[in-house]
Amino acid sequence: MKLSDLQSSSGEWLGGTGPEADIVISSRIRLARNLGGQPFLSSADEQQFGQLERLIREGMENAAMPGGMSYFAMQTMPMLDRQFLVERHLISREHAYGKGPRGVGLAVDETVSIMVNEEDHLRIQGLCSGLQLREAWSRVDAVDTGLDNCLKYAFSPEFGYLTVCPTNTGTGLRASVMLHLPALVMTRQIDKVFQAVSKIGLIVRGLYGEGTQASGDFYQISNQSTLGKSEIAIIENIEVVIPKIIEYEKTVRNNLMHQKHEVMEDKVWRAYAMLKYARVITSEETMDLLSAVRMGVSLGIIQDIKMSTINELFLFTQPAHLQKQKEAQLDEFERDMVRASYIRKKLQQGE
Amino acid sequence: MKLSDLQSSSGEWLGGTGPEADIVISSRIRLARNLGGQPFLSSADEQQFGQLERLIREGMENAAMPGGMSYFAMQTMPMLDRQFLVERHLISREHAYGKGPRGVGLAVDETVSIMVNEEDHLRIQGLCSGLQLREAWSRVDAVDTGLDNCLKYAFSPEFGYLTVCPTNTGTGLRASVMLHLPALVMTRQIDKVFQAVSKIGLIVRGLYGEGTQASGDFYQISNQSTLGKSEIAIIENIEVVIPKIIEYEKTVRNNLMHQKHEVMEDKVWRAYAMLKYARVITSEETMDLLSAVRMGVSLGIIQDIKMSTINELFLFTQPAHLQKQKEAQLDEFERDMVRASYIRKKLQQGE
Repeated sequence: MKLSDLQSSSGEWLGGTGPEADIVISSRIRLARNLGGQPFLSSADEQQFGQLERLIREGMENAAMPGGMSYFAMQTMPMLDRQFLVERHLISREHAYGKGPRGVGLAVDETVSIMVNEEDHLRIQGLCSGLQLREAWSRVDAVDTGLDNCLKYAFSPEFGYLTVCPTNTGTGLRASVMLHLPALVMTRQIDKVFQAVSKIGLIVRGLYGEGTQASGDFYQISNQSTLGKSEIAIIENIEVVIPKIIEYEKTVRNNLMHQKHEVMEDKVWRAYAMLKYARVITSEETMDLLSAVRMGVSLGIIQDIKMSTINELFLFTQPAHLQKQKEAQLDEFERDMVRASYIRKKLQQGE
Repeated sequence: MKLSDLQSSSGEWLGGTGPEADIVISSRIRLARNLGGQPFLSSADEQQFGQLERLIREGMENAAMPGGMSYFAMQTMPMLDRQFLVERHLISREHAYGKGPRGVGLAVDETVSIMVNEEDHLRIQGLCSGLQLREAWSRVDAVDTGLDNCLKYAFSPEFGYLTVCPTNTGTGLRASVMLHLPALVMTRQIDKVFQAVSKIGLIVRGLYGEGTQASGDFYQISNQSTLGKSEIAIIENIEVVIPKIIEYEKTVRNNLMHQKHEVMEDKVWRAYAMLKYARVITSEETMDLLSAVRMGVSLGIIQDIKMSTINELFLFTQPAHLQKQKEAQLDEFERDMVRASYIRKKLQQGE
C-alpha cells in the first residue's frame, strides 16, 4: 500500500454508514502499550529509540495482522504526507512532528493504525464510522493480541499495562466518540453537556484531540481514567452517555425545526449557497458551513446530497489533502481558491 | 390610472436602458413652484391649504399635459400606498406623511410626477433612466410650461421663482443623478468623490434624498444653489462632473478585476448565492447583496441576469412593494420571508 492509495479512497469511518451516523461521526479506541525490559521513550536516547522502532516494526511484520497492514517510517516522510495523516486522524500531531525514529502501521481501510514511538512505544488505534465502540474495540483487541504474541508488553499484575503518563496506566485504553452537535452549539446548550459528562469522569475535546479547538461543531467525548476498570466497563460507561447526548441534540433540532423553521432553513441554505458559489474560502469557514449543511442533510432540509459527500468534504478540503490532490505546495490564498473550486465541483457531482 | 397599474409595470427609469446605465441609475430634475398672490404653505392655515390644493388640481386638469396625468389625493390614501410611492421615488417622505390637503399627479410611465402642497405649492419632477438630465429637463419643462398657462406662478424679475426655502429661489431647479458606486465604496475612495464635488457646489445624498443614508452603494449627486444661473447652466455643471465620476468608478473596477480578480468574483458570486438561497432576508442586506450582484452583471462576471431584473429587485423587495404584492399587512419577519421568496423566484426567472 502507498499513501496515495489512501488519497483516492476514503476511510471506513467517512462512509456515514455506521449507527447514528447523522450525529456520531466515528468511534475510536486506542491502546497505549510499551515493551517490557525496555526504557520508556521519555528516558530513551536516540539509539534506543532506533532499536525500539526496529524491534516493534519486526514484531508487526511477524504478527498475524487481521486484514494486513503497511508500515511507513515517519522521519523520512515528507511533511505534507505527515500532515495528510494527521488530517485523516491516523496519527497525532505530536507523532507527525516529533523527533527520533518512529513510524506508523496502517490498515488499508484505515480502521486500524499503529503509531510506533509516539508517547508510548505503541499506540494502537481502531476507528469505525458511527457509534461502534465495540467494533472498534474488537479490531484493536485482535491487533493487540497478535502483537502480544511477538512483543513482550510491560505489564504489572498490580497496575496493568505500564505507560509513560500515569493517566494511561491500567488498561491503557481510551475510548472516544466524535459527535456533531450543531443544534446544541446554536442554542448554547453545549456547556450543559460538558458539565454533565465531566461529572461522570468523561472529558470533551476538539476535532483533533487533546488541546485542540472545537471546529465545525465537532466534539470528542472520551474517558479520563484507564485504571481500575475493565476495558468493557470503560466502553460501557461511554456507551450509556452517548445516546443521551444524541437524544438531546435531536430534541433541540426538532424544537428548532418546529419553532424556528424558517431560521433553520435559512441557516442551512445560506451555508449551502456559500459553499456552492464561493471562489475563495478558508478552512475555518468551510468547517462552519459544512456543519450547517450536514445538519440540513440530517434534517431532510437538503435532500439531494449524501452524508458521505459532506463527510468527505470535511476531510478533503483540509490543507494537506488539497495540496496532495493538486500535487503542489500552495500558499494560503492559493489553497483558499483551490478549496472553493474543489467544493463547487463536489457539490455539483453530489446533487 | 390606478396605483395598482404602477405595481405591475415598472417606471421608465428602472429599465436600465439609458446612457451609462450600468453606473447611472437615473437622472432627475425637479422644479419648485408657488402660486402668485397666495400664501406660502409655511404660513397657510388648513383652509388655505385646501383652497390651494383645489386650485392647483383644477389647473392641472385644464393644462395640456404631455402624455396625460392622473391625480391622487394624499390625505385619503392608505399609508401603504404612500410608502409605495416613496419607494418608487415619486413622492418625498415629507409629502407622504405630512399634514393637510395635498396630492400627487403622476404620468403613467412615471417619468413625471407633480407633488401638490409639499414644501412648495408645486414640486414638478422628471425622472429618466441612465444619464439623461436633458431628457428629464425637457419633460419637466413641458409640464411647467403647460401649468404656467393655467396657474400664475410667484415670480420676481430680480430673484426668479420664489420658494419657501431661499435655497430653492431662482430657477427652483434641482438636478440630480443617482450613481451606483460599489468599487469606490469597496476601496474607500468614495470620500475623495465627496470632497471633489463639494468644491464645485454639488452635494451628495443617500438613496432617498436629503437626510437619508447611502444604501446599496447608491449616491445622489445634485446642485446646491439654484440662484444666479440658468437652468441649462446648472445642468451643464453636473453633466461635466458625472462622466469623471463614472470614469473613476470604472477605473477602480478594472483595477480590482485585474489585481484582485478572485476576490471580486468571490464577492459577486457569494452575494448572488445569498440572494438565491436565503429564506429570511432584511431589506438592508438585500440592498447590499444586490449592489454586489449589479456590479457583477456590469463587469460580466454574471452573464445570465438582465440589469433590469436587478433594478426591479431593488424596488420590488422594499416593504410597501412586498406588501402590495401580497395584498396584506406583514410584520417585519413575515416581510423578510416574503422578500427572500420573491427574490428566489425572480432570480430563477431571470436566468
